[in-house]
Amino acid sequence: MKGRLAVVGLGPGALDQLPAAVATELAGADHLVGYRSYLDQVPAELAPGRREPYELGEERRRARRAAEAAAEGQRVALLSSGDPGIYGMAALAIEEAAGLGERGPEVAVFPGVTAATAAASLVGAPLAVDFACLSLSDLLVPWPELAARLEALCAADVALVLYNPASRARRRPWEWAVASLQRHRPQPTPVAAVRRAYRAGQSVRLADVGSMDELEVDMETVVIVGSSRTVRRGEWLVSLRDEAPP
Amino acid sequence: MKGRLAVVGLGPGALDQLPAAVATELAGADHLVGYRSYLDQVPAELAPGRREPYELGEERRRARRAAEAAAEGQRVALLSSGDPGIYGMAALAIEEAAGLGERGPEVAVFPGVTAATAAASLVGAPLAVDFACLSLSDLLVPWPELAARLEALCAADVALVLYNPASRARRRPWEWAVASLQRHRPQPTPVAAVRRAYRAGQSVRLADVGSMDELEVDMETVVIVGSSRTVRRGEWLVSLRDEAPP
Repeated sequence: MKGRLAVVGLGPGALDQLPAAVATELAGADHLVGYRSYLDQVPAELAPGRREPYELGEERRRARRAAEAAAEGQRVALLSSGDPGIYGMAALAIEEAAGLGERGPEVAVFPGVTAATAAASLVGAPLAVDFACLSLSDLLVPWPELAARLEALCAADVALVLYNPASRARRRPWEWAVASLQRHRPQPTPVAAVRRAYRAGQSVRLADVGSMDELEVDMETVVIVGSSRTVRRGEWLVSLRDEAPP
Repeated sequence: MKGRLAVVGLGPGALDQLPAAVATELAGADHLVGYRSYLDQVPAELAPGRREPYELGEERRRARRAAEAAAEGQRVALLSSGDPGIYGMAALAIEEAAGLGERGPEVAVFPGVTAATAAASLVGAPLAVDFACLSLSDLLVPWPELAARLEALCAADVALVLYNPASRARRRPWEWAVASLQRHRPQPTPVAAVRRAYRAGQSVRLADVGSMDELEVDMETVVIVGSSRTVRRGEWLVSLRDEAPP
């Protein structure tokens, strides 16, 4: 009997941001596989299955183990944060399941609340017109390729959501992004840095393109940069379509 | 006493895609304001408050009415589909609440599952690297501005999610998008058209950039176009970072 590999996202962190379909899948899983700190976010009473925690950086091993366990007939939940299809585990899970050929389990990807919209909701509606999401981590993507995408998106007049803006060891992509945005967008364009959205220690800082180099950012921060359609209304950022009043 | 204006999204349509926080807010609302067909998606037993349905195209009236009712002290839920910050009601709600000045109610935006990730989950993980979302509706955005954004995003090497690709009366932006993508991206680049994700009549069609002009699309379709990192694995689309196997 074939099992099933469900790839689920935990959303921004608070359990009340989980879609009911994800909660049901977690409750029914025989076996939960994920990064240790994601597993720790889910109380055992909500997900009584056996748990197999992994450390950071073992993404492919996790995906392989989850696919193998599902191929053996178990109902497996592989955990991501946010939405599992956005910088999450869904792509690796599909690759590993496909790699098992005939033995490969059924895969189901469950959508969730991604960090971009979670962060946006805390500062208003900065993504209400068109927008792009870009991860500044160059761990798995060659820097020239990342730089080309970054330059193209900074130049395009869309709101921009920067995931993983910087780590302790990696500052260059962030510095490069700030410089590119300061070249391409008017200095008063609104910017928001949202850290730990919907989790303990949540913080929101507002800035603008001209001052964004002063923001402190890390791997728990999401940075939202407005377009020519984004305005500030008190503590809110709003991107407006044409019919909105000035 | 000031009320509260909660802007909530219903997700792609199935109620089990609602985050618990949204379900709780709907259950506790005194007054629900929204497009008639969104209100019809929520059974009265889950949201017993008074309902004020609006027809399509009355977005600003809806937002104003919701802000007024909240200013009068009610707990109001203003409904969008998807995530209310993505082409939804959040921006107008903030504008209208701000327009009431001192009388303006507290506003809370609740994140939800947006159409991009709902559609992506049904075809695998096409948005697992960087991506952009663009609405092809030129109803509220001048066409030259929309065309400039479209051209910039078709040229950038990111996955692209096209919302509102075409209506019966409006085909030009879609034809223009197809032509631009066929100029900028290799013809075998994977494309998916997802219609009515997580709703009755759901359909998924796979194509590629070379054949995407044959897709039938409408206002209920979301089109996902891959980047140079997107591959097809059987019936799945996957965007791969560097460490993934070829």
